[in-house]
Amino acid sequence: MRDVARRAGVGASSVSRVLAGHPDVSERMREAVMAAVEELGYRPDLLARGLRSGRTGTVGFVVADIENPMVAQTVTGAERRLREAGYSMLLTNSEGRADQDAGSIELLVQRSVDGLLLLLSDEENACTVAALRRAECPVVLLDREIPDGAGIARVSFDHRPAMAAATRSLLALGHRRIGLLVGGPRRPRHERRAGVEEAIASEPEASLTVFEGALTAADGEASAARLIAAEPRPTALVVAGNVLCEGVLLAFARLGIRVPEDISLISCDDSPAAALHDPPISVVTRDMSAFGLRGAELLISQLEGAGAVEEVVLPTEFVERRSCAPIAAAANGRKV
Amino acid sequence: MRDVARRAGVGASSVSRVLAGHPDVSERMREAVMAAVEELGYRPDLLARGLRSGRTGTVGFVVADIENPMVAQTVTGAERRLREAGYSMLLTNSEGRADQDAGSIELLVQRSVDGLLLLLSDEENACTVAALRRAECPVVLLDREIPDGAGIARVSFDHRPAMAAATRSLLALGHRRIGLLVGGPRRPRHERRAGVEEAIASEPEASLTVFEGALTAADGEASAARLIAAEPRPTALVVAGNVLCEGVLLAFARLGIRVPEDISLISCDDSPAAALHDPPISVVTRDMSAFGLRGAELLISQLEGAGAVEEVVLPTEFVERRSCAPIAAAANGRKV
Repeated sequence: MRDVARRAGVGASSVSRVLAGHPDVSERMREAVMAAVEELGYRPDLLARGLRSGRTGTVGFVVADIENPMVAQTVTGAERRLREAGYSMLLTNSEGRADQDAGSIELLVQRSVDGLLLLLSDEENACTVAALRRAECPVVLLDREIPDGAGIARVSFDHRPAMAAATRSLLALGHRRIGLLVGGPRRPRHERRAGVEEAIASEPEASLTVFEGALTAADGEASAARLIAAEPRPTALVVAGNVLCEGVLLAFARLGIRVPEDISLISCDDSPAAALHDPPISVVTRDMSAFGLRGAELLISQLEGAGAVEEVVLPTEFVERRSCAPIAAAANGRKV
Repeated sequence: MRDVARRAGVGASSVSRVLAGHPDVSERMREAVMAAVEELGYRPDLLARGLRSGRTGTVGFVVADIENPMVAQTVTGAERRLREAGYSMLLTNSEGRADQDAGSIELLVQRSVDGLLLLLSDEENACTVAALRRAECPVVLLDREIPDGAGIARVSFDHRPAMAAATRSLLALGHRRIGLLVGGPRRPRHERRAGVEEAIASEPEASLTVFEGALTAADGEASAARLIAAEPRPTALVVAGNVLCEGVLLAFARLGIRVPEDISLISCDDSPAAALHDPPISVVTRDMSAFGLRGAELLISQLEGAGAVEEVVLPTEFVERRSCAPIAAAANGRKV
């Protein structure tokens, strides 16, 4: 900025005023400053530009865990739509740590993003909720429900029907002792569990054992080992997360548990690991790319003043594969 | 800013001058403006703050394709180290499009990042190279070699020895017709190919068929199908990319090709899909988290003035699994 001032033969404060679009600047001054800016290749202060136009053309995306392939697909879906609409995207990653979400929101707001897409690690964290209240830009929540979140646009998945259908398919195969592994943020966790419980409630003889924990592979591996040691052992397992399921498969390989001979298995979210597994694993799928895309659309419509605050609900689907088999006639009563 | 000026009872240009740390501002004026900034919760203009301190405490990371799990692991490794050192990270994703890298570099530079980590889609793209020359902040290149890139810090993998070891293991099993699928940016592609070729050159009867293309699963699937149709068909295949290998496995499943009975298979980069495959797939592995971490360290040492521009080279390793088997005695000469 000092170089620009010297080149234009004016004071640094004049350069500030010109770049901030201040009204009491002579046309001659403005021209001299802008010519120096051009000649020196000085990059315009985007914040100052934002103060003039009210926009920086950039959207911030806070993601819980970029290592989860589902998250990465969501990012790509959102980015394509944003780019079409002329927006750049800046990403931050919270590494699944609830205490990072708030810092990421603050960072992006300070960098003057026009709006925020949020795939939060923990929707109930008080710092996150407070950071969101301070953020004055439009926000879209992706499959989360913050406390008192009325008035915030959302894209959510309807997890329950497909989770219930998946569980009913196990009941139809004769399974009565069913295990469920769930973890992570409240919204998908609670909805997925509710779908399973809804189906279980329809069958008087069915029982459900729930393991709640984190969403990591290590947690899936530990929970699967506990489940296999349970007496009586569940004959079927629903795993509400793709990374959790990686851990489950590692535990099964280590313990010599065969799918579906020893236990039937259903996971959530499709992946090469699930589809190319031998046998291929039944999954409750959802379209993460559409999820990101619709989130971007809701945000764009708010940014362009077209949109009321909306909620969009996307479907999920149960895809049955060979990881589920009928239970042997006596196994439900037998100690395994 | 206008609200701050009104609250402080000064002109907007005075607010600019105070926030820019301009020397010709009275102490009383400075206090009035800063009090108004406090009261109104006005967020400091980070660019202006950067002009004072020379720093914004933020590092930009340009990644080629966030959907690749290897890339995501690199990001997480870098982010942990940066966070320890007090830096925030802003990410941009190029979706594997060479024409996006330059735009991402420009965006991050405009947002006044202190330095850049670059995992580029294409190190030879002229716009990217030009954008890098214009960027005046410290830069670390991750496993890429830009033309005339002397003076740019780098973290690279030593791909050749493990690729040669992988290929020699196939030769030791009796394979003589070997296929290689490679794609993507020049540096890993060229180094991986050179390692394979080095081993092939050591065995006079060995021949290599190379398929070069993109790094997508679709490309892997198409190349695998062409390879299977080749006369005579290779008896072993080295796939230089984890996403490529997903496509190869899809093609093999579709065509009824068994691993290792019909073809031996080696991939690059470990993943749940490779480790949990039946049979588990031999891979050339590398530590992506250490890759990100060392990149972050090189950048931090430059930012803190401690570092000369350095190159760090990290090892790769061949991990043999059950996807490779001895060739049937006559198969090398036989038409398959």
